[in-house]
Amino acid sequence: MVKKKKFSKITLSTSSKDKRVFSIAKQIIEILSSVDIEISHDKSLSDLNKSKYSKLVSSKKIVTSSDLLIAIGGDGTILNCSRIYGSKGVPLLGINLGKLGFLSDIAPNDVTTSLLEVINGKYITDNRFFLEASIKEDKESFIALNEIVIHSGSIAQMIEFEIYINDAFVYKQKADGVIINTPTGSTAYSLSGGGPIVHPEVEAITLLPMFPQSLSSSSLVVKDSSLIKVVLTKSGSSCQVSFDSQDKINLKGKKEITISKSSSQLTLIHPLGHDFYGGCRNKLGWSMGIVNPSK
Amino acid sequence: MVKKKKFSKITLSTSSKDKRVFSIAKQIIEILSSVDIEISHDKSLSDLNKSKYSKLVSSKKIVTSSDLLIAIGGDGTILNCSRIYGSKGVPLLGINLGKLGFLSDIAPNDVTTSLLEVINGKYITDNRFFLEASIKEDKESFIALNEIVIHSGSIAQMIEFEIYINDAFVYKQKADGVIINTPTGSTAYSLSGGGPIVHPEVEAITLLPMFPQSLSSSSLVVKDSSLIKVVLTKSGSSCQVSFDSQDKINLKGKKEITISKSSSQLTLIHPLGHDFYGGCRNKLGWSMGIVNPSK
Amino acid sequence: MVKKKKFSKITLSTSSKDKRVFSIAKQIIEILSSVDIEISHDKSLSDLNKSKYSKLVSSKKIVTSSDLLIAIGGDGTILNCSRIYGSKGVPLLGINLGKLGFLSDIAPNDVTTSLLEVINGKYITDNRFFLEASIKEDKESFIALNEIVIHSGSIAQMIEFEIYINDAFVYKQKADGVIINTPTGSTAYSLSGGGPIVHPEVEAITLLPMFPQSLSSSSLVVKDSSLIKVVLTKSGSSCQVSFDSQDKINLKGKKEITISKSSSQLTLIHPLGHDFYGGCRNKLGWSMGIVNPSK
Amino acid sequence: MVKKKKFSKITLSTSSKDKRVFSIAKQIIEILSSVDIEISHDKSLSDLNKSKYSKLVSSKKIVTSSDLLIAIGGDGTILNCSRIYGSKGVPLLGINLGKLGFLSDIAPNDVTTSLLEVINGKYITDNRFFLEASIKEDKESFIALNEIVIHSGSIAQMIEFEIYINDAFVYKQKADGVIINTPTGSTAYSLSGGGPIVHPEVEAITLLPMFPQSLSSSSLVVKDSSLIKVVLTKSGSSCQVSFDSQDKINLKGKKEITISKSSSQLTLIHPLGHDFYGGCRNKLGWSMGIVNPSK
Repeated sequence: MVKKKKFSKITLSTSSKDKRVFSIAKQIIEILSSVDIEISHDKSLSDLNKSKYSKLVSSKKIVTSSDLLIAIGGDGTILNCSRIYGSKGVPLLGINLGKLGFLSDIAPNDVTTSLLEVINGKYITDNRFFLEASIKEDKESFIALNEIVIHSGSIAQMIEFEIYINDAFVYKQKADGVIINTPTGSTAYSLSGGGPIVHPEVEAITLLPMFPQSLSSSSLVVKDSSLIKVVLTKSGSSCQVSFDSQDKINLKGKKEITISKSSSQLTLIHPLGHDFYGGCRNKLGWSMGIVNPSK
Repeated sequence: MVKKKKFSKITLSTSSKDKRVFSIAKQIIEILSSVDIEISHDKSLSDLNKSKYSKLVSSKKIVTSSDLLIAIGGDGTILNCSRIYGSKGVPLLGINLGKLGFLSDIAPNDVTTSLLEVINGKYITDNRFFLEASIKEDKESFIALNEIVIHSGSIAQMIEFEIYINDAFVYKQKADGVIINTPTGSTAYSLSGGGPIVHPEVEAITLLPMFPQSLSSSSLVVKDSSLIKVVLTKSGSSCQVSFDSQDKINLKGKKEITISKSSSQLTLIHPLGHDFYGGCRNKLGWSMGIVNPSK
Repeated sequence: MVKKKKFSKITLSTSSKDKRVFSIAKQIIEILSSVDIEISHDKSLSDLNKSKYSKLVSSKKIVTSSDLLIAIGGDGTILNCSRIYGSKGVPLLGINLGKLGFLSDIAPNDVTTSLLEVINGKYITDNRFFLEASIKEDKESFIALNEIVIHSGSIAQMIEFEIYINDAFVYKQKADGVIINTPTGSTAYSLSGGGPIVHPEVEAITLLPMFPQSLSSSSLVVKDSSLIKVVLTKSGSSCQVSFDSQDKINLKGKKEITISKSSSQLTLIHPLGHDFYGGCRNKLGWSMGIVNPSK
Repeated sequence: MVKKKKFSKITLSTSSKDKRVFSIAKQIIEILSSVDIEISHDKSLSDLNKSKYSKLVSSKKIVTSSDLLIAIGGDGTILNCSRIYGSKGVPLLGINLGKLGFLSDIAPNDVTTSLLEVINGKYITDNRFFLEASIKEDKESFIALNEIVIHSGSIAQMIEFEIYINDAFVYKQKADGVIINTPTGSTAYSLSGGGPIVHPEVEAITLLPMFPQSLSSSSLVVKDSSLIKVVLTKSGSSCQVSFDSQDKINLKGKKEITISKSSSQLTLIHPLGHDFYGGCRNKLGWSMGIVNPSK
């Protein structure tokens, strides 16, 4: 095992409200300051402002000067940090307060050992791509690490849309909405709707209709280089586009939403021994069996 | 709570190969003999032949003279005993060697307490119906407590059939097969194939195609008084009809299989406190959640 | 075939915006007036106010004096009329403007023949039950013919709830929501979410979680006499309860919603030859097969 | 559009019993002989032996000397020809006698026009990979274009197995079996079992358990370079491994089956205008909608 690049400028962030965040942050600072790391935190951890080892820095500064961001709090925190920092090139390492996550996988108890190993270059890098959506006649574009959901904005109400992939017509559908997700998102919302689990290394995007009127629309897995166009075909209707269930935009009438792989990329850092399938077994209950009475 | 009928003539049976069966049987005999119950066992427990408190009796005798059959070994044992004894009127009580089952729900540790309560009239009765199948131009008929499966006899090979319910045409299908199950069977094989869980009190039969060529064939729940006719439409083909995965018959060519609720009924005996939903939570992992990273 | 009760006081209603409604209404009036039927219409058809054969009447009057309501416009119109008139005892007959429906099944072309037969007593009656929901500490109650949906009010956002049936705890779930539907509703929204098709004669209610976090929660079919309690367990959250996607109420915080079969009932009138499975084949594409390349 | 390589040595083959095969073969020979193509056929078309334009050749000869194989008869014929000729480097063009297929897409009516265009270099090439399975301690290996199915050999009977991917443990499962399929196979058997549709360009393999005892095992999509190991863990049991439902091998006891992408590849030839999604719409009924009564 060749050692990788060591880290020397590390920022802490969170989006969790959990009370343990502060004490874990202090524990991390203690560890890192003892080995001469330059430590900072963003405004989400302003409770640390009085710390003599960590200084508050702006998001802008973090992007240009940190070489690792430690996200404390679980996969939701990683999702949020991935869009703010990760998409701009800062690698992320996740400390998970709850059940081990798919994205953040150091348990509080393992912080001391795992952290020192990681900053010394013993880690695994895991690259994930973002999806990017742009709405025709609109300048802004948005990204998502897990999934982009286009929906009516209200359950049991349908939108009508056509899907085109690389300009080829795929299908026309009436449904509550459609989920378009990365492999990273395949273990999240899409899975609850019956979508397949896609290993992070597969270069693919999954489309999954939500409560489709046509019964024969199963999930569709296409190449990650595909240009996916969702055309809303009904003039009077309104719909929502949501990004990782965190950002939302509202649309009215006939619109064209174009979704593709973003040029920016996330680098996740895992301690050695990280295992995608272990995460699945742990979080998805793969080890649990029903006991079939007829057998 | 009004006390129910007490039991006085009890037979033991098993179809399990588990080594603990014998010691549990002896424990049960000890308990029952101390309260003056007339005890017997069938040939499945011939190891007990030397017991001074239990005598070996024939199946025929059990049906006419026992007022309770204790099935030791789990839901598979109950399934088997239900066809031999239960369908002929003998109530069944199940002692479960493994994880608590849907049909047999006294754990070995609870035998002493639960058993004395039950034979003293403190119990719940739970009536389940059988399905009965008859093949046109054939005299024999077969019953199943869980499900009747009509299939090609080989995976990834299709049969062609038409379904009629009370003589109304339902659909024509090409599929590996079709599962027709009782509410009792809804937590067994049908569930593995995506069928609904049907509470034992619902008077219904469920039909579920297996690997159907038509994607739009979801499960269909019909009244338990329905006469279901499965017509095999291809002259050259062969198929199997299986009953609770235990009995099997082979058919060739165009055949007509008629399935309906049997006139015989099973009476399951449960200790007080028995709870169908508790069984589901326990056996189906209803308490397990995935942790959705986007939430 | 014994002839049934003839109809003599008939009211027309619609909730469709389709332009053909008016001409079909006039055609119906022509047919009915030629056989001395007393004809009326409600305010949804105020275009008929000048007709010399049909007079405008209030909803209240319709309920007390009409012996048949003809709903013009499809299943959506039937759903709406069922709550206003049907639940109060007026039988409904549906004239369908589009593809034949599950609830309304006379095509415009068949109006002349079918209608005269029906009013002369040649028809099938088809009773359907409503679900009724009441919220603890709230006086109002609402009914639905298809389904009651309890959800977060927004896609990809979860509510936490516990389900109790006849006071027995069933499960605790995090999900976008839960669909609770009648057999009538089993071919509507529930079907899009993977629920089973339940024949109208089965006395059952189906529960189906929407995008559940726990993967092992399939649909659950319980007796129609069940008292279903959905307990929202999170204090800060808000949710919506929707009735046939037409009425909605908003709730905040911990609430208890009780759902059961309503005491009122709908009588649907069908022309002779009506066939539930024919409707399924027609509307659900049961006759369509994929052609499996490996076969 | 740059013209591609023209074809000059073409062989005809079939595995269909359809009576039209012979007349279509003669029509093709007529077209090809008029433009100076060297035509041959294999023994499946021995009815052509008397033809003065086509000569019978051995499989071995075809592989070394034909530059195009025309498979007459549908996707089943393509599957068969793909293993015999396609896997050894001969490109395949399919003439479909039935409904247009996923693999063979020239309709009999279009033979004249399409064929001349194709042999003149106006065509699309479409590369598909095979899966290869080898059983430990066994020399032979087998390939499949659609899917490899490992199963108990009998419906409603379970096998116990563990899955490893690139030596990482994935899960342990009791199920009727497991389907391991290419993107090509994703529209075949796997789809009937609820698997995702995977576009042919996605470099992935899908795993789908069949009637799994554990409810939480959805389909899993992994990189096509993955080494998949299925370990049968029960000593007494027997199982079958099937290749495109055409070849089968039987195994007994604990075995290790290794599945990976084969080094051989299939080149499919399509006329210009070929469209994967058009095939889906046509064959999977994507254009069909249920009409949801509540909408």
